[in-house]
Amino acid sequence: MDEHRERTAAWTKPLQCIVKLGGAAITCKNELETINEDNLNTVSSQLREAMILGPCHGMDWSRRPGSLENPTVPDDFDDQLESDSKNFIVVHGAGSFGHFQASKSGVHKGGLSKPLVKSGFVATRISVTSLNLEIVRALAKEGIPSIGMSPFSCGWSTCERNIAIADISTVVKAIGTGFVPVLHGDAVLDSSLGCTILSGDVIIRHLAEQLRPKYVVFLTDVLGVYDRPPSEPDATLLREIAVHEDGSWSVIKPKLQDTSKQVEITVAAHDTTGGMITKISEAAVIAKLGIDVYIVKATTKHSVRALKGQLKENIPDDWLGTVIRLAK
Amino acid sequence: MDEHRERTAAWTKPLQCIVKLGGAAITCKNELETINEDNLNTVSSQLREAMILGPCHGMDWSRRPGSLENPTVPDDFDDQLESDSKNFIVVHGAGSFGHFQASKSGVHKGGLSKPLVKSGFVATRISVTSLNLEIVRALAKEGIPSIGMSPFSCGWSTCERNIAIADISTVVKAIGTGFVPVLHGDAVLDSSLGCTILSGDVIIRHLAEQLRPKYVVFLTDVLGVYDRPPSEPDATLLREIAVHEDGSWSVIKPKLQDTSKQVEITVAAHDTTGGMITKISEAAVIAKLGIDVYIVKATTKHSVRALKGQLKENIPDDWLGTVIRLAK
Repeated sequence: MDEHRERTAAWTKPLQCIVKLGGAAITCKNELETINEDNLNTVSSQLREAMILGPCHGMDWSRRPGSLENPTVPDDFDDQLESDSKNFIVVHGAGSFGHFQASKSGVHKGGLSKPLVKSGFVATRISVTSLNLEIVRALAKEGIPSIGMSPFSCGWSTCERNIAIADISTVVKAIGTGFVPVLHGDAVLDSSLGCTILSGDVIIRHLAEQLRPKYVVFLTDVLGVYDRPPSEPDATLLREIAVHEDGSWSVIKPKLQDTSKQVEITVAAHDTTGGMITKISEAAVIAKLGIDVYIVKATTKHSVRALKGQLKENIPDDWLGTVIRLAK
Repeated sequence: MDEHRERTAAWTKPLQCIVKLGGAAITCKNELETINEDNLNTVSSQLREAMILGPCHGMDWSRRPGSLENPTVPDDFDDQLESDSKNFIVVHGAGSFGHFQASKSGVHKGGLSKPLVKSGFVATRISVTSLNLEIVRALAKEGIPSIGMSPFSCGWSTCERNIAIADISTVVKAIGTGFVPVLHGDAVLDSSLGCTILSGDVIIRHLAEQLRPKYVVFLTDVLGVYDRPPSEPDATLLREIAVHEDGSWSVIKPKLQDTSKQVEITVAAHDTTGGMITKISEAAVIAKLGIDVYIVKATTKHSVRALKGQLKENIPDDWLGTVIRLAK
C-alpha cells in the first residue's frame, strides 16, 4: 500500500479518477475509422465539468486536417490564475479504429518476423494513434490539458500477453505537472510472442493498482452490465456487483432468481469478443483493491454523476449503471 | 565506446543512419500546418530505397481524415520472406507545425503554472504529433515499418534546456525488432524551467552519441551550408567542413579567401533563428565522434546518395552538399 504513496509523493493532490472511454461509445462501431463526434464532444464536456472548477481555455490551436480555416486561439490569458482541477487519467479503446488492421494481420497472435504481422503492427498503431490524437484534440478543445501517451512509446511491453514492463513514471510526472495523460489500447512488443495487443482495460487495471484512484469509470454504449444481451427483452441491468476477497463476485442488486453463478455463465455466453467478461474481471481486480468501479452509459446524466464521484456511499435509485465494489 | 555496444547487443546489424527530415523540407514554411506532400512522398521513397533491399508492402491501412474511401490493404503477403533492410532512425523538425503554438505561448521559456504556457504546451504537442502521424503514414505507405515515438511519451525531459533524462531503451528495442523509430522535436518537461522545447537537432546528437550510426544525414531545403545567406548572389556552398579535436571547425573545400573564423561569423550573422548555427554545432559534436554528417537538399539525386551512404571516403565533385567530418 505504501509503494503507491511513494510513487506519487510529488503530487499535491491524489488521483481522483481513471476513466475508460469505451471504443463503442466514442466511435461508430460499424463504420471503419469513424468517430462519433457528438458523443465525443459530450463526453469531453462532461469530463471537463468533473475535472475543472472554474474557467478554462481551448487548448487545440491546430487546423483541422483538410480545412483552410485558421484555428482560434483564446486571447484572455493575461494574469489569470490557474483554475482548480482534479487529477484524472483517460484511457480509451479502439472501437472502429485498429480492430480492422489488427484482425486482418493477427497482430494479437504475435509473429513479428512475418511481413503481414509486421505490416499489421505498423498499420494498427497508425490507426489507434490517429484516434488518440482526435481524442486529445477533443479534450483540449474543451479546455482539458490532455497529453497523448502511447503505451508503445512509453516503453510498455508484455510477456505472454501479460504486462511485463510498464513504467508509469512519465504518467506520474505528467499528472504532477497538471496534465491529463490520455493512453490507449496499443500494439506492443511481447517478449514471448513477438508482439500482441495490450487492451485499454488491462492498462486501466495496471494504472489503478499502481496509482490508486478514488474511483474508476467505464463509459460504454449501454447502461451497464446486464444478465443477458441487452437487446433481449427480458435483460436485467445489474445495479451492484460485490467482489469478495477470493476474487469471486455476486450480484447484490437487483435480487435475482438465478444464482450469481448462473448470471456469470449467462454473461459469458453472450460475450463472444471477450469484451464484457474481460471488463468485469478487470473491474473485479480493481474493486478488490477497495476502489469502486462504475460501468455507465456515456453522455447521460448517469455518467456525469459517476465522473463527479457522487456515488461513493449509497447508490441512488434513480442512478442507472453498474457498480462493482468490494463486498462489505 | 563499449557502452553503446552493450546497449545494442541484441541487434543483428548496426545502426546505418540517423536522418533528420528538416521542417523546411517537408512542410510549407509560410503556410500554417501544411505539409509539402510532394516533397514528403519523394523523401519517403528515397528513404525506402536506401533502407530496404527487395519488395515491400504498404503499411498504412487507414482512411484519410475526411475521406470516405476505404484504405487499400495489400493481399500478396503469403509465405513471403522478409526483405533485407538496414537500421535507420528518422527524426523530424516542426516546420510550419508547432512553431506558431510554441511562440504564441512561450513554451520554450517555461513557466507551466501560467495558463497560457500550459495551454500552449498542449497545443504545441497536438500540432507536432499531428505532423509526426502524417510522416509515419507517408513512410508506412511506402513500405517502411515506421513507429511514431514522441520524446515526451518516451519520458524524455530536460534541465535548463539540456537533455536530462532520455532513456533510449524503447528506441533500441524498436530497432532490434525491425522497426524504424520516428521521433520529433517536442515540448517536454524541464526540471528547472517547468517546460521547454527539445529540438530535433539536439535529439539527433543525443541518439548519435548513444547509438553510433555509420553516418547522419540532415535533409534541408537548400543544397547545404553556405558562407552567407544562400539567397545572396555570391553565396558559396561549403562542401567540406573539418571538425578538430578541440571542437573548432574549418572549411576544407572550397578553399576560401576568408578564414574559417570569418565564415563562422558570416553564417551566424544570417542565422537569426539559431537554425544553421545550431545545426553546425550539433553536427560538429557528432562529427567529433568520427561519424560523418551530410547536410543536403531533400528530394535530390544528392540526397539519395547521402542516404545510401555512398560518400564514405572521397566526396565526388558532382555531389552537392556539405560534409562535416573529423579532421584527418
